Amino acid sequence: MTESRYETLARTLRRQIDTQVWLPGDRLPSLRESCKQSGLSLMTVLQAYQLLESQGVIVARPQSGYYVAAGLQRPVRRQPDERLHAAEQVDVNDAIFDILKAGQDPSVVPLGSAFPDPTLFPQPRLARSLASAVRRMSPHSATANLPPGNEELRRSIARRYAQNGIEVAPDEIVITSGAMESLGLSLQAVTEPGDWVAIESPAFYGALQAIERRKLKAIAIPTDVRFGMDPDALEKALETYPVKACWLMSSFQNPLGCTMPPENKARLVDILQRHQVALIEDDVYSELYFGSERPVPLKASSYRSEILHCSSFSKCLAPGFRVGWVAAGKYVERIERLQLMSTLSASVPVQLALADFLQKGGQQGGYDTHLRRLRRVLEQRQMAMHHAIIKEFPAQVSVSQPQGGYFLWLDLGDNVDAARVYQRALAKGVSVAPGTMFSADERFRHCLRINTSFEWGPHTARAISVLAGLVAEEIQG
Amino acid sequence: MTESRYETLARTLRRQIDTQVWLPGDRLPSLRESCKQSGLSLMTVLQAYQLLESQGVIVARPQSGYYVAAGLQRPVRRQPDERLHAAEQVDVNDAIFDILKAGQDPSVVPLGSAFPDPTLFPQPRLARSLASAVRRMSPHSATANLPPGNEELRRSIARRYAQNGIEVAPDEIVITSGAMESLGLSLQAVTEPGDWVAIESPAFYGALQAIERRKLKAIAIPTDVRFGMDPDALEKALETYPVKACWLMSSFQNPLGCTMPPENKARLVDILQRHQVALIEDDVYSELYFGSERPVPLKASSYRSEILHCSSFSKCLAPGFRVGWVAAGKYVERIERLQLMSTLSASVPVQLALADFLQKGGQQGGYDTHLRRLRRVLEQRQMAMHHAIIKEFPAQVSVSQPQGGYFLWLDLGDNVDAARVYQRALAKGVSVAPGTMFSADERFRHCLRINTSFEWGPHTARAISVLAGLVAEEIQG
Repeated sequence: MTESRYETLARTLRRQIDTQVWLPGDRLPSLRESCKQSGLSLMTVLQAYQLLESQGVIVARPQSGYYVAAGLQRPVRRQPDERLHAAEQVDVNDAIFDILKAGQDPSVVPLGSAFPDPTLFPQPRLARSLASAVRRMSPHSATANLPPGNEELRRSIARRYAQNGIEVAPDEIVITSGAMESLGLSLQAVTEPGDWVAIESPAFYGALQAIERRKLKAIAIPTDVRFGMDPDALEKALETYPVKACWLMSSFQNPLGCTMPPENKARLVDILQRHQVALIEDDVYSELYFGSERPVPLKASSYRSEILHCSSFSKCLAPGFRVGWVAAGKYVERIERLQLMSTLSASVPVQLALADFLQKGGQQGGYDTHLRRLRRVLEQRQMAMHHAIIKEFPAQVSVSQPQGGYFLWLDLGDNVDAARVYQRALAKGVSVAPGTMFSADERFRHCLRINTSFEWGPHTARAISVLAGLVAEEIQG
Repeated sequence: MTESRYETLARTLRRQIDTQVWLPGDRLPSLRESCKQSGLSLMTVLQAYQLLESQGVIVARPQSGYYVAAGLQRPVRRQPDERLHAAEQVDVNDAIFDILKAGQDPSVVPLGSAFPDPTLFPQPRLARSLASAVRRMSPHSATANLPPGNEELRRSIARRYAQNGIEVAPDEIVITSGAMESLGLSLQAVTEPGDWVAIESPAFYGALQAIERRKLKAIAIPTDVRFGMDPDALEKALETYPVKACWLMSSFQNPLGCTMPPENKARLVDILQRHQVALIEDDVYSELYFGSERPVPLKASSYRSEILHCSSFSKCLAPGFRVGWVAAGKYVERIERLQLMSTLSASVPVQLALADFLQKGGQQGGYDTHLRRLRRVLEQRQMAMHHAIIKEFPAQVSVSQPQGGYFLWLDLGDNVDAARVYQRALAKGVSVAPGTMFSADERFRHCLRINTSFEWGPHTARAISVLAGLVAEEIQG
């Protein structure tokens, strides 16, 4: 027996309710709308609705229409991948996505997150800038702000460079959808698939993923927890392999938190220049310095035309806006074209909002005032967590002491498997970033990265105690 | 003789003014700020400012500070690449970027543009939605709206699918930074470099660029100006080559404007299914239909889990917001991960604004009312331009008659070089899109695409007359 037309319609509606196109309490399309959409008669549609009503799936309200039953059991949503928790080995990519998901779960203390505490940012003022910017937005703004992006915003960024003694013209800057896009476009601009790229070891996992996606070959250069990439090791690599580009973070590196000393920066630039290797400088944390001196990027050197300096507002002002930039040196036109071919341009309203905020900030000290407060809070929180770790973790655990940013790097000792700590901690409501995320091999399997941007209080204190206890257990085997 | 310190500082400031870090009339950093930034003494900084003042570059205003001289000649900005105008041959890529730039030049009638007339959109209402959304924005919105993107927005999109009889659950949708990103991620999800992809001929140039960037091999399938991709030719291609994916526009194709008849759609789906080939369906124009019936995408078929249906709000509601989506079938998790690795997520404020707009639109008919008006205006404008072309162009020129969208496709005749028409028209302040942009070879060198979304009036009428005259001249040789 074939299904009648009203049964087919009822089944379609039921499936829409099951997949949450309509939620409990939502009004379904009216009988008239449903007739129009389906091409069926009023009688057929009415029969379908009455069938669903008799099944308790929807309820009729006189003079109003049909509603999804409030008590209807909500079906299980698409399940997160649970392989990770069961597996002996952590797959780097799975771990990354799992940690990102854990950051969205309010019951987990997200010490594994890469994002700063979202309450640290001047959201009401950003909202005002956004509202003010869109009120003044011309219809032509969509095309006027195509790559390289909004002119006022590029000029404000260039002025901040100038204030730090770095020569970057507004015309050298391309506004992007966050630093991730800046880095990806930069990598495309200076390499072809199959090329060699020198990266840090350990490195930001986004670099590892981008290199894999572009089918590049990576040489991991030893990177010191205090002094950053080792210039001698880099030079040896450049003498041995036909390296096309180097990708590094000169300040408050992710995950180590290290900053290169000035003499190492000078040597590194000299080495890159002699070997004619382009540099992708990921510099998203440099505004977050604790001392009185902002660290100087390699972009400040005379080699600047070969340095693609990538940064964003996501870590220091406006997470979620997804606005970054690259000061691309001689690659600026190539970057513009690559962007036009991939995402076309950064979202216009948020570009205008940031241009507005920075202009006002310049007059009233708004942005700089915010940054000073942010740096102070981040320093205090990092000190509190550092102190607790020193106090509570077993003596064999060593901890970094960065001068900025919001990451601590823990070496748990060779006999501890950080992936196990990660899995066991997650089961107890604490996420951490295991060292395996930051390398293509198992070199850092005994290390952890911890996000220190969250307020020191009962939740974070408990999280640190949980971790300390787990690490002690793992050491005792 | 080495330069003194004040001369060095003066030169740095002069260069900042030359590169427009500071514009005429801008106040320079105060002496005190400048001392702090440069680490130089007040006397040295004062000498530098006085040197620039004596050169007429800056002026002092008592009690206020130093300002960039208003009359200072602004230096020439980074020049657009002018090779194109001089070259005999049009390079496809250069032409594309040139046409995009021409769209930003207010003195050019941008008939070559891919963007609809920006004045066609409900900007004040979108601004209100944006202001309202950011006022209610939680600090956690940045992480809460990571891929797959804002839940309310995905549900609103799923409801529009449901209203058109297409089964797409909110969980199958990933919000992106525009359809360009949707298409790029889809291509990455279903291919590896070196794979074969079947595309239309002629095709949207974004498809050609994406395929080239991913190092894929393309098979161009003949595509009819009325009926779209030829199913027989596709079947032959799939029998001959190990094709991994097919990329097409089933409705109001760019550049032809064609829409596949229902029987061709059914055949095409059957062919793809038998050969197990994934489909990337670019469907950004389907809301812009002129008749009473919205065309049905291939996504509506039973093969939907293998169809990545890509669309956006850029052509029909909010250009410049850069918000699109992909209904990714079984590839949804892969798409999410690829997005996390490339742009992280779409900008949050604009996602929330569109969610707000669509929800209100649903209650008050706002979005649908806008769309009905937009369709009517686009149809009228296309008719006016079509009429003028028929009347003014030489008889050998044939013109398409699409039932939606805002493009006309002109076949000028085999003896006319559209690239020459393009170059000569641009010199007269009219841009068009030459056929060479839409193919990897010279197959469409006698064709043009014209954007008909602009108001019919003196400017557009003149532009059509200029083009008609140039084509007549080219025919006469």
